[in-house]
Amino acid sequence: MTIRPPLTPLAESLPSTVPFVGPETQERAAGRPFRARLGANENGFGPSPKAITAMENAAHHVWKYGDPESSDLRAALAQEHGVKPENIVVGEGIDGLLGLIARLYIEPGTPVVTSLGGYPTFNYHVVGFGGRLVPVPYSGDHENLEGLRDAAFAEKAPLVYFANPDNPMGTWWEADEVQRFIESLPETSMLILDEAYGETAPASALPRFEPDRPNVLRMRTFSKAYALAGMRCGYAIGEAQTIRAFDKIRNHFGMPGITQAASLAALQDKAYFQETLKKISASRERIAAIAAANGLASVPSATNFVAVDCGGKAIAEAVMQGLLDRDVFVRKPATPGLDRCIRVSVGPEIEMDVFEQAFAEALAAAHNQR
Amino acid sequence: MTIRPPLTPLAESLPSTVPFVGPETQERAAGRPFRARLGANENGFGPSPKAITAMENAAHHVWKYGDPESSDLRAALAQEHGVKPENIVVGEGIDGLLGLIARLYIEPGTPVVTSLGGYPTFNYHVVGFGGRLVPVPYSGDHENLEGLRDAAFAEKAPLVYFANPDNPMGTWWEADEVQRFIESLPETSMLILDEAYGETAPASALPRFEPDRPNVLRMRTFSKAYALAGMRCGYAIGEAQTIRAFDKIRNHFGMPGITQAASLAALQDKAYFQETLKKISASRERIAAIAAANGLASVPSATNFVAVDCGGKAIAEAVMQGLLDRDVFVRKPATPGLDRCIRVSVGPEIEMDVFEQAFAEALAAAHNQR
Repeated sequence: MTIRPPLTPLAESLPSTVPFVGPETQERAAGRPFRARLGANENGFGPSPKAITAMENAAHHVWKYGDPESSDLRAALAQEHGVKPENIVVGEGIDGLLGLIARLYIEPGTPVVTSLGGYPTFNYHVVGFGGRLVPVPYSGDHENLEGLRDAAFAEKAPLVYFANPDNPMGTWWEADEVQRFIESLPETSMLILDEAYGETAPASALPRFEPDRPNVLRMRTFSKAYALAGMRCGYAIGEAQTIRAFDKIRNHFGMPGITQAASLAALQDKAYFQETLKKISASRERIAAIAAANGLASVPSATNFVAVDCGGKAIAEAVMQGLLDRDVFVRKPATPGLDRCIRVSVGPEIEMDVFEQAFAEALAAAHNQR
Repeated sequence: MTIRPPLTPLAESLPSTVPFVGPETQERAAGRPFRARLGANENGFGPSPKAITAMENAAHHVWKYGDPESSDLRAALAQEHGVKPENIVVGEGIDGLLGLIARLYIEPGTPVVTSLGGYPTFNYHVVGFGGRLVPVPYSGDHENLEGLRDAAFAEKAPLVYFANPDNPMGTWWEADEVQRFIESLPETSMLILDEAYGETAPASALPRFEPDRPNVLRMRTFSKAYALAGMRCGYAIGEAQTIRAFDKIRNHFGMPGITQAASLAALQDKAYFQETLKKISASRERIAAIAAANGLASVPSATNFVAVDCGGKAIAEAVMQGLLDRDVFVRKPATPGLDRCIRVSVGPEIEMDVFEQAFAEALAAAHNQR
């Protein structure tokens, strides 16, 4: 038997499963590219041309390590949100920051409250640090705030995860409900309020920032509304003392200068941003209209995707497979109750046209199989 | 007293010190930019123009998440090094990969062998996971291979770190010595062979890759010879089973597509790479010549920096401070024995001219202070 250096028992025990398979992997398996890329909640309308110019300029300076403090970007974000730079930590996407949060708060056995069917990458990090997931079922298509709160108390959970707007259903709670939820939580529970889709939500869904509150971390990203998913830039807003804890463990030189420059330029191009929001909203409506034209409902969405209700798990799986077979990349929830839906990201008209035709075909084929 | 969600005891215990303060932080404190940036072992000769073009092109596609498998890059690296893609994991610089390695192998109290005065970011990750550093003093200006081996056996250490060529001294061991060291280690010790400066070393310093050996991870980066420090792309080469373990914990969508594209283009531009190596070699010689012209020796280097021997700790600190006061960014080792040196990165002639004048002035001022 080969002798190997021992992994920690925790690392040894972890599964090799990954939260998401990349579309490139699917394309390589299929031997051809997708015609429409609508499965990863990316933003195919693309980033601000000013962000592209910023990247082209920054490409000439990549021999330098990026500023480890992301100083210019944090200053701009602080101004944007009415907080101080010391309330903000910038990291390699919300995904990267969720990993750091798990590391800060989770030991083997630590209970962590989240929604059953919520963001798989959060669960991946929780399990990766040995945490014990306490999943709370959705209430209908909404995350269940009372259930999350009750679980936080019952488990004395140091971490509670809640996405508003929600992924994978796209639903949202209004700010007053969210604020009541925040105030109802144990002081010893840190709420991870994932607002990856905050910019595409109605303003009425976003509570005011309270940078002095010690048990909330608000997560934002440049991946969605700003269309910089491939650059990996997210940030968390919280109490300065909480934010300082990230400095104990983060990869200080992990943020490329080109990413900082792109994010800053995207943030500053307000006109383009507003245009994008209109396109996202219109594209949500088109997805819902396509669903309706095929006799299906869809879940009202505050995100850059729409959960189309196919009426049941088996038919939804068949429709998704039919779309993949027609080179249309979508994904779907796997959790009972949510699994009746497929999840379709917004995108340019040309991709919507492809989706429209493929969806009708896939749906018909799925019905014929039954 | 404010009640807060509890960090883990380990996280709570960690210091807020960081391995390196960024030069931008120093510039902000000084209120003016450095005239020469020679402190972070960057490569001011810059990346291949083809890498810049690749970034300019990729900037138009950043709305997509990057391929989580870095498939094209890993295929090219596998060909380059005569291994298979499954022997390679790509990550956010060697720094990011070192953090993952620490997480895979270290629990609180785990002994980890490294050199006293070796790479601080490795130590940062070890301490960050509660590991117990077992530091082995250098032998002269070289890492002490016998001492590292003896410590690995005495401590039954699951991790041993060794940089070849070395940072901060720039020295190296020849491949046959390294190979003997590899073969002498316990089978239960994973050797982290950090070859961040491998490309700037004589070929005779690099052992052949042995992708089936279960207890060696070879670390490489695009930050140094390829001048892509700001893009954060490193990789580890090891046994496929070892490499698979990274998939259990890594941030799968953490590698920007633009970084993958830049690295691939840089790797493929062999002519530019060879020209860069010549420039780095010439610049090392110039730094040594400047030292010699001022009556000082320097340590022979296989890296993109030179340790200039100022003759003692106090004078070296004064010279470094004198250089910083003259807006020349350099760093220096802090460990007794090594701390007689300042560490000067290679760079373009115009920065070397600035260094040459500032160094003579700083040295004279340091002598006058005594």
